[in-house]
Parts: sequence; C-alpha cells; structure tokens
Amino acid sequence: MVAASASLENLCINSIRMLAVDAINKSKSGHPGLPMGCAPMGYTLWDKFLNHNPKNPKWFNRDRFVLSAGHGCMLVYALLHLTGYDSVSIDDIKQFRQWGAKTPGHPETFETPGVEVTTGPLGAGISNAVGLAIAESHLAAKFNKKDISLVDHFTYVIMGDGCNQEGISSEACSLAGHLKLGKLIALYDDNHITIDGKTDVSFTEDVLKRYEAYGWHIQHVPNGNTDVNAIEKAIQLAKEVTDKPSIIKITTTIGYGSPNKSDTAGVHGAPLGEEESANTRQELNWEYAPFEIPQEAYAHYRTAINKGAKLESDWNEKLNSYKSKYPNEAKEFERMLRGELPENWDKDLPTYTSGDQGLATRKHSQICLGALGPNLPELIGGSADLTHSNYTDIKGETGSYQADTPEKRYLHFGVREHAMAAILNGIAYHDSGLIPYGGTFLVFADYMRGSMRLSALSELGVIYVLTHDSIGVGEDGPTHQPIETIPSLRAIPNMLVFRPGDGNETSGSYKLAVQNRKRPSALCLSRQGMANQANSSSEKVALGGYILEDCKGTPDLIFIGTGSELDLCVQAANKLKAIGKKVRVVSMPCVELFEEQSDAYKEEVLPSNVRKRIVVEAAASFGWHKYIGLDGASITMNGFGASAPGGKCMEEFGFTLENVLQKANGLLG
Amino acid sequence: MVAASASLENLCINSIRMLAVDAINKSKSGHPGLPMGCAPMGYTLWDKFLNHNPKNPKWFNRDRFVLSAGHGCMLVYALLHLTGYDSVSIDDIKQFRQWGAKTPGHPETFETPGVEVTTGPLGAGISNAVGLAIAESHLAAKFNKKDISLVDHFTYVIMGDGCNQEGISSEACSLAGHLKLGKLIALYDDNHITIDGKTDVSFTEDVLKRYEAYGWHIQHVPNGNTDVNAIEKAIQLAKEVTDKPSIIKITTTIGYGSPNKSDTAGVHGAPLGEEESANTRQELNWEYAPFEIPQEAYAHYRTAINKGAKLESDWNEKLNSYKSKYPNEAKEFERMLRGELPENWDKDLPTYTSGDQGLATRKHSQICLGALGPNLPELIGGSADLTHSNYTDIKGETGSYQADTPEKRYLHFGVREHAMAAILNGIAYHDSGLIPYGGTFLVFADYMRGSMRLSALSELGVIYVLTHDSIGVGEDGPTHQPIETIPSLRAIPNMLVFRPGDGNETSGSYKLAVQNRKRPSALCLSRQGMANQANSSSEKVALGGYILEDCKGTPDLIFIGTGSELDLCVQAANKLKAIGKKVRVVSMPCVELFEEQSDAYKEEVLPSNVRKRIVVEAAASFGWHKYIGLDGASITMNGFGASAPGGKCMEEFGFTLENVLQKANGLLG
Repeated sequence: MVAASASLENLCINSIRMLAVDAINKSKSGHPGLPMGCAPMGYTLWDKFLNHNPKNPKWFNRDRFVLSAGHGCMLVYALLHLTGYDSVSIDDIKQFRQWGAKTPGHPETFETPGVEVTTGPLGAGISNAVGLAIAESHLAAKFNKKDISLVDHFTYVIMGDGCNQEGISSEACSLAGHLKLGKLIALYDDNHITIDGKTDVSFTEDVLKRYEAYGWHIQHVPNGNTDVNAIEKAIQLAKEVTDKPSIIKITTTIGYGSPNKSDTAGVHGAPLGEEESANTRQELNWEYAPFEIPQEAYAHYRTAINKGAKLESDWNEKLNSYKSKYPNEAKEFERMLRGELPENWDKDLPTYTSGDQGLATRKHSQICLGALGPNLPELIGGSADLTHSNYTDIKGETGSYQADTPEKRYLHFGVREHAMAAILNGIAYHDSGLIPYGGTFLVFADYMRGSMRLSALSELGVIYVLTHDSIGVGEDGPTHQPIETIPSLRAIPNMLVFRPGDGNETSGSYKLAVQNRKRPSALCLSRQGMANQANSSSEKVALGGYILEDCKGTPDLIFIGTGSELDLCVQAANKLKAIGKKVRVVSMPCVELFEEQSDAYKEEVLPSNVRKRIVVEAAASFGWHKYIGLDGASITMNGFGASAPGGKCMEEFGFTLENVLQKANGLLG
Repeated sequence: MVAASASLENLCINSIRMLAVDAINKSKSGHPGLPMGCAPMGYTLWDKFLNHNPKNPKWFNRDRFVLSAGHGCMLVYALLHLTGYDSVSIDDIKQFRQWGAKTPGHPETFETPGVEVTTGPLGAGISNAVGLAIAESHLAAKFNKKDISLVDHFTYVIMGDGCNQEGISSEACSLAGHLKLGKLIALYDDNHITIDGKTDVSFTEDVLKRYEAYGWHIQHVPNGNTDVNAIEKAIQLAKEVTDKPSIIKITTTIGYGSPNKSDTAGVHGAPLGEEESANTRQELNWEYAPFEIPQEAYAHYRTAINKGAKLESDWNEKLNSYKSKYPNEAKEFERMLRGELPENWDKDLPTYTSGDQGLATRKHSQICLGALGPNLPELIGGSADLTHSNYTDIKGETGSYQADTPEKRYLHFGVREHAMAAILNGIAYHDSGLIPYGGTFLVFADYMRGSMRLSALSELGVIYVLTHDSIGVGEDGPTHQPIETIPSLRAIPNMLVFRPGDGNETSGSYKLAVQNRKRPSALCLSRQGMANQANSSSEKVALGGYILEDCKGTPDLIFIGTGSELDLCVQAANKLKAIGKKVRVVSMPCVELFEEQSDAYKEEVLPSNVRKRIVVEAAASFGWHKYIGLDGASITMNGFGASAPGGKCMEEFGFTLENVLQKANGLLG
C-alpha cells in the first residue's frame, strides 16, 4: 500500500512537473526549473495542508498561498488546474504566456482567480505575505470570540534564493519576527542556482541563522526532491509553533527530473526543448502525452473540491452561529467583506474658510486621520519610523499593533519603507475591507517604488502618506528634498497622486483616497504651513483640477498651481488683476483625475486658445508641458535643492511673488 | 597621568558633543542625539586609527570614513574641524544648515572636502562603504607588489539602528560577507532609539547574529558611553581580522550628557534648547562658552595634521619607489588617479551601416562592453544576477571578482539591485578612476532608485545598464515591462538617460556614458532586435536629438522616436513621403543632452512653427509634451503591459505602422 500511495504521490508530483515542462515548451518561454524542483513541496502543501475551496477562490477563511518566486508560476497554474479551479483549464495552460490568457508569465491576481498575490519582482511576495498575516491576526483579534474563531487561517509562501537576497524580504521578515506572526510559514526553495549560476558566486550566508536572528522558527529538509514525508512533518511542526513565523529550508534540485539540465542555470528560465523533455519523461517514467494528466492524479487532486466545499460550509455554519450570537460584530464583519464603507464615514472630515489658520498639509492630514479613525474602523496603518514627522497617528488612539496587541491598528514599520509598502499591499491583498495606509518622507518613496508600482498594477487601494513634499523641507537638504519624486509618481499608471493646496483640498484628497479601493493614492503633503484658500473646495478635488480664482471673459493668462505654491499663484493673480489683467488660477491637486474629466470640462478649465499658462510647483517641471504646452512657462525646480531653512530655499529657488510676477509679465508681453 | 589623559580624552570627546549641541541650537534644527552618543567612538576611531591628512583630504591612500547615519553629520563636521580640515572652520560650524554653508544638514561630499560619501537616506552609507572596500581591494590586487603596498587602507563606517533596518544594508552586508572584505569595519551605534521611540516597537532581532550569518566578524562593546578602552581594543581586533568584514556593536545612550533628554527620541532630531544645553554643560562639567573649544583639545586633535602630513609623505616615498621599480604600472596608476581616460579608449567602439544585421540594443551594449574592456582597464561592473540577460559580461574575460580573485573586474551582485547601485556609487566615491557599471532589467530600476538618485545628486559617473526596456519584453508580462520607468528616470536631475535606436546610437551612448564622470548614465536597452538606420550617428548622440531623416523645406510633420520605435517612425515617414508629404524624423536618444544644446540648434531640429509632431515611444507619454506641445500627438503607453510575445504586445498596444500612419494622417488632416 505504501508503494501504491507513493506511486500515486509520484504521479501527482510529476503532474506538476510535466504540466510546467509542456506549457513552457509550447509557449517557447518560461521558467521550468522552479516548478520541477518545488513540485514535491507544492504537492505536499496543497494536498495535505492548504485550506481552500477551488470552487470559490474568494472564500474568506482560506489559507493564503503566495508564490514569492513568481517566475515559477507554472507551479501555481498546475496546482490551480489540478485541484479543480475553473480559472485554469487545461486549455488555459496550453495558452501559457499568450495574449489574453489566464496564465500570464508571472502570477497576476487581477487575471487569475486563485492567485492571491501578483509576484515576479523578487522578495515582494514574502513581504506581501507578512501583510496578509498581519491582516489575519488583526481581524482575528478584532472579531474572534472565545467560542467562535471566525478568522483563522495560515499564510504559506514558497520563496527562492532570489527572494532571500532582496533587501525587501530582510526588512519584512525582521518585522515579522518581531511581531511573532505564528501563522506565517515560508518554504524556502534552496536550490543553489540563480540566473548567474551557482549561488556561491554571490550568496553564501547562512540563511536559516539569519532568520533565527530575526526570531523565526527554523527547520531544514535536506532532501526536498523526494522526501515528501519530511516536508509534511516540517510543515506540521511549523503550524504547531504559534509564537513565531516559520521558515523551512527545503533543499531541492532545480529542474529535477531533467537528466541533462537539472541543477544548472540553463533550466531556470528557458524551455527544456523537445529532446530534453523526452529525456525527462523517461527519467520520471512519465508515459503521458503533453498536457495529458493521468486520471488517478486528477481524481486525487480534485478531492480538494469536496474538501473545500465542506470547509466553506462548516465555516458558513460558524458564521451563522456568530451572526446569531454577535449580530453587531457580524454586521460589521460582513460589511467589511463586502468592501462597503460605513455610513457617514466621512462626516467628520473638516472644511475650512480662508479665515481659518493655515497649517501644513501634513497637519491637515493628521486632522483627517483623526476625523476618519473613529468612523472607519477598517483604517489601519502607520509610518516607517516617522510617526511624529508624518503625523500618521490617529488622534485619540494609543498603543500599537504588536504581538500581544494585535487588535490595535497602528503599525510601527521601523525604518523599512520598502517592506512597509509591500505589507500595505499584503493587507490590501487580504481583501477583507481593511484600508491600509503608510507614511514616510516623500523623497523616500524611491525606497519603496517597486512595491508602489505593484499597488498600482495590482489595483490595491493603498494610501501613501508622503510628507515633506518639496524644498520646503529646508535644512535637511537635498538628500531629503524631493524634486523629481512627484513627477515620477505621476508617471505611474493607475495611481492617484494628490498634492493638496490647503485644508479643504486635503480633506477632499483623503475622501477620494478612501473611496478609491482599486487604485493606490499618494498624498504629497507639506512640512510647512500654507494659507487656506477662499475658494478651495473639498468636493472639487474629485475633478482633479478646477478654477480656483477667475476673471471675466477669456483670461489673458492662466496660473496652474498645486500644494504650497497655490497661494503664490493666487497672490500673483491678485496683483495682476489689480493692474487690469485677466487672470485665472487653476488648482490642480490631482492631475490623474483631471485627465479623466470630459473634454468639455477640460476645455472649460484650460481653454485651448489661452496659451499663456504658467505652472508653479516646487518640483521638476517634467510632465507639466501637457498643460503649458510649447508656449507656457514654469516656475519649477531645475536641479536638486539645498540645505537651508525652508523659506530661504523657496526664495533662492525662485518661489517668490516677485519671480512669479516677472515670469507672468514676460509672457503677457 | 591616567587621570590627566582621561581628562584630556573627556575634553576631546565632549568637544564633539558640545559643538553638536551648540551648532544645532544656533541653527534651531538638527540631530544632536547621535553625535552626543557616538562622540567616544568617533574620537577613538579618528584619534587612534584613522589614517588621513587633514591638509589634503584627497590624499589617495587615506582610510575612508563613512557616517552612514548621516543625520548625525555634526559628528563629522566636529571631527573635521577639530582635526584641522580647512573645509570646516568654527564659522562654518556656526553656519550649520544655512544657505551656502559648508555644513549642510546631511553630509554632502560635493559640498565639504573631507566628507567621503553623501549620506542621509539610511542604509546607503554602509552599502557605499562595501563599494569603497571593493575598490580598495581591487586596486590593491591590481597594483600592489610584493615589496610595495601602494593601495592599503581601511574603510570605517558608523551606522545606526536605522541603517540596520533598511534592506539595502542587508543586501550589501550579505555580499560583503561573501566577498570577505576584511578591511571593512562598521561601528554600529546601538542606542535603542529611533524616531518612533524605543527600537523595541519594531526592531528586536539579534543584529550581531545576523551579521555572523553573513560571515562577518562580530564584537560587542557594552558601554560605548565611557569605555574608550574597550572601543579601542575592539577596533584593533577588527583590524586584525583580515578575512572577514567586522561589525562592532557599541551600546550607547543617544544624547549622552543631556540629563533630561538623553535616551529619548526627543533628542534624535531636535535642538536641546538653551535650558537643557545648560544642564548638559553642567552634567559634562563643560565650562566653555558656545563654540569655544579648550586649547588642549585642539592641540591634541590637531596632532592629526603632522601625523597626516607624515603619512602622506611616507606614502609619496613609497610611490616614488614604485615609480622607479614599476614605471608602467605607476603610469597607469597615476593616470587613473588623475581621472584621465587612456588614449584611444574608444577606438574599438563599432559603427554600423543599414546593411548590418539589426540586433537588440542589449546585444549592441554587450559588443560595446567587449570593445571597451581591453582599452579601458578601469571599467568594473557586473549585474544583479542577470548577466546572461543584460549581457553585461566583458567579452573574452572569464572569472569574477571574488575573495580570492580581487584582481578581476566582473562583479556578481546577486539578486540585490539596491545594494548594486550603492556599491557602484561606493566605487565611484573611491575617486580612483574606476568606472563602475551595473545591469538589471529596466523595470527594476525601481528597486535601486534611492541610490540612483544619489548617483545623480553626488555627481557620480555610474553607468546603469538597463535592459528589457519596454513591453517588447513580452511574455514576462507587466511586472517586468517598464512603462513609466524611462520617464521617471528622465525626471531625475543630473542623470543622462539614453535610449539608443540602433547600433551606432548604442556606441555613441557608451562613449558619452564613459566620458561623463560627473553624472550617472542610464542606458535603456531593448530585449528585441531592431534595424540599423541608414543615417544614425554615433557622434550625434552627443546632441541628444538630431535629424535622422529629413525633407525639403519646412516639414508638415515631425516624428520624434527613440529606441526600438525609431524604425517605425522612419517607415511611416517613408510611406508619407511617398504620397508627397514633407516629413522629418528626429531621433532623440538622450533628452537631457538635447536640452543642453543651443536654442538655435533646438529650433533647427524642432522649428517652433511646426506644431504637428508625433512622438513614438513604447513608454508612458509623460514628459514628451515638452516637445509635442498641446497640438501634437503621441503613440505611447497609457497603462501597464501584458504577458504575450513581445511582437504581439507591440501590435496590440498600437506600435504598428498602420497606427502610426493613422495618427499622422489625423494630424495632417
């Protein structure tokens, strides 16, 4: 019976390997090495541990599985297909990496139901997984009762050498150890090969010892190629260690089964080819045609369907019982799962008049977070160790999310920007209504840009609170003064970049950031104070740009301003109006939203026959010519800033009324 | 005598502390906590170990000192001043953080002679130091002889908790351990405080154990506040360990000396204020007025001047003896130190005609590296584990820079993009003529953007080889297809972004990248092949943009193209010319260089009266309106790409002759 079971096990494992080989051969492109080497751990994890429901990939209480080494995506597609997900048919696998297929070259959560996380950029997946585990533990602490554990799942990861070399994973895993995320379990595919060859050309550290230093539970399975039993025992033990995240180093052979290419970089990212596929079939005793899977393997794998249905229906019973015992909590829980915002969530967002004291927009941001906090319990976030500079705290709340206080929602990320962004993504990927936000200095968006890009690509409504948004930073100097950062964020598709010009616009920006659950928002906020405008509007931020101050008839000149420079535009306009010029001021807190308006509206705000346009923004002009064209002018930054008091910097770099007027007069002729 | 010496020692140490306190009070801005806590280690290192020459900060064989925790810059300014550097007078210290001062808010190598590395963004400095140590060991292997060690210095770093939390340092230090950089010594200021408070809110890992896992030699000095002797012994021992980099964890109290603020986050980044400064004076028995330093302290510190002069003159003798014994090597060595390129270094860069087979520009790049390699021995670089995708190898060379082969110049960075960029910066900071280059996929420029920015800010001639530059990447899909990356790099001041359109332009780009030793270059290179143009020019790349194909008289329409889309423009122009339209094609391989040309030249290439302009580039249009204005059109990317063969992606996203012609006809009316 052991033999028979072993043989079925082999069939199941080799089904993964050969689907990968065949799909990658057919597409003439892909990475067979990982799925071939990781098939045993993939099989063991999915067959013996993973709680999921193939017929409802979105069942809330499923275990989350993240393939951090995303290039090995055929492993996931094979497992999704074999266990009966409708999202990946055998035809989908045959369409691997083709236009419009459900099986893209790296896993994309927005393409393929069952894929939890978009991976490919190395190190990001394991870092997202830390966010998934944080979300789980927070929701568990929030909703579970002594008698009913509504939220109770593991987060599993398969990661490779590349993931372990990337700094983002070091940041995230150090924090995971600190937070004692006991339900996070990483399987580390230790195959000794990266693209440049043997890992020993650059990577000889003791990985497990490093994780132990982070506070993780560590194990090693020396033979991950065939010792399924050892893999199973290790995962079981990892599950039992509940006060630490676990990493299991599983030593494998990349491209296992390929007699001539296994254990070489050649099998990492290129098809085996026909001849070596034939050799591999022989080596693995695989007697099936390409894309043919033996019925026994299907039959075994697809027990996952009934198992999954049972898991979900058991959980639904639990939920029903929860509903009757804890109706208020249940209502809240279900609201969050539906992704609905609470009623009147935005009722306390403040508005201002020009009589109100001008503040820094980072300060307005803090007021907004304080106004949202009590009405929006799903808001969860923090700062990469700049809480008292970013003002990311939620007024009235004390204490933070820690191992012993997971019900709290303030996250101390440490000086780890890239992990912060990935963790925020992970919280969003959990898809349970949580609204993640995180703060750092705007200039350090550069440190986390890889993950900000993934927020945008994966349609995650993460809110980035980016303070100290210009040379107004002052004394900290050019290393801390963003110049190109705002334009470089505006260049990212599917991201809203807000640079509010006062209190009303900050409130409006927050409202939109919260509402936009399918795209990230970057709030660019000042260190220094600025006036509240008489005619600014919280509501009009939704238009992206709007007429803040106008004149009668067709303007001679239009100022376009954002953030702390908006007031300069207004001042200059007033001066010019006083001498009879017709001047309009357009506030443009969100270029992306302005772009989405109708042509008629855009023409109304920026009539195409008015070519005398001046943009004023304390950042590089890059991107602004879309609005000022070949005939306009800009008062922007041409190079890096300097260390000096912020006001002095503004003055020296030309952000003065005098200079704005001079430019305007130059254009007006 | 012990007492007297201890007392002098205290005076010296407290001189650092009080200069920091006074300067930061005067500027009302700054970070006193670190210099107060690190004064003992700073004093010990600079007084007892650091080989340097205050009167010649650029003396080649000096030890390099990097303050990775750059916010503590008053530590460096104090030490530079106290040891007699002309760059930092007491008046400069009084001007701390003021406009035009030599004492900016974070250390800037381009502002202050004696500052080796621009720091502030955390984790970068220690990672630069890995590059400095690589440069030293490489040059030592290259030039030292059995009887004469011309290159022989240590690289010392002071780093903080923040540096150790940042992933960039994890990447760099893992690699440093692998490379056994025995002359790299890091002092870790373990003060338990970051901006958010006690480090235990987010950072409880065992740092030394982690470094041990990387292969470093580790030590701990438990009392870094007063036990100078222990610090001295530890540094001495670290120097003696030559087969491993060393880290010494030195436990200190942030803001040591301030009775009410030490050991709190409050002293990290804010002035002590008058009252607490008075308390601190009392606590430290400091009887001197603000900015007053006792003569004994000056006298002791400034022994560094004579010591330094002697060190340099001894070394000069060594150099003279080297010159007579090894004249060829000496000539080469001196040439490199002068920053002169060898004669005819570019003689083998190829040129092409349209009859030559079209290649991917990454392939042309490989040919350039092969052509430069033998003629430019100072070229040193590699790839972040994508050697055979980036084609960053130097043809004909085998083996790589490793602990036992430091004379080699190929660097295997591992999957560590951010560390790669920082290490390249470090090699450039070494200022010894080495020309560092490094490759990864263009999309992963995001991972290293923090350090790319510092290349630009610090005027470092690093060459970034960024392949797979568009949706032409194909099957790997949107996670690997840059869309916004090229515009986002163009937004960075002082960086040259090249996107060559064929073989000639690739050669031209390399030539310029090598010549530009004061700014970094980003070479954006295709995965896929493209035709060699009949009229492309290696030389004209220096103009940034130039007329590739022209018509008689004023053009009806101008195409602007780059990279793989240039040929589409040429094809479309030919079609339009065939039907009698007057069409010009402008190739724009480097926007930044085009911007630097005379107005007359720019007008010649893009006459202001020709408003029908179309840009074709498989990237976001962001930034191009500077040339197409309000009346032009663009064939660019509006969103993320997709996984499919590259040609199919190009077609689906509109990069077809048909679509270009349609847009052109639309404009032509």
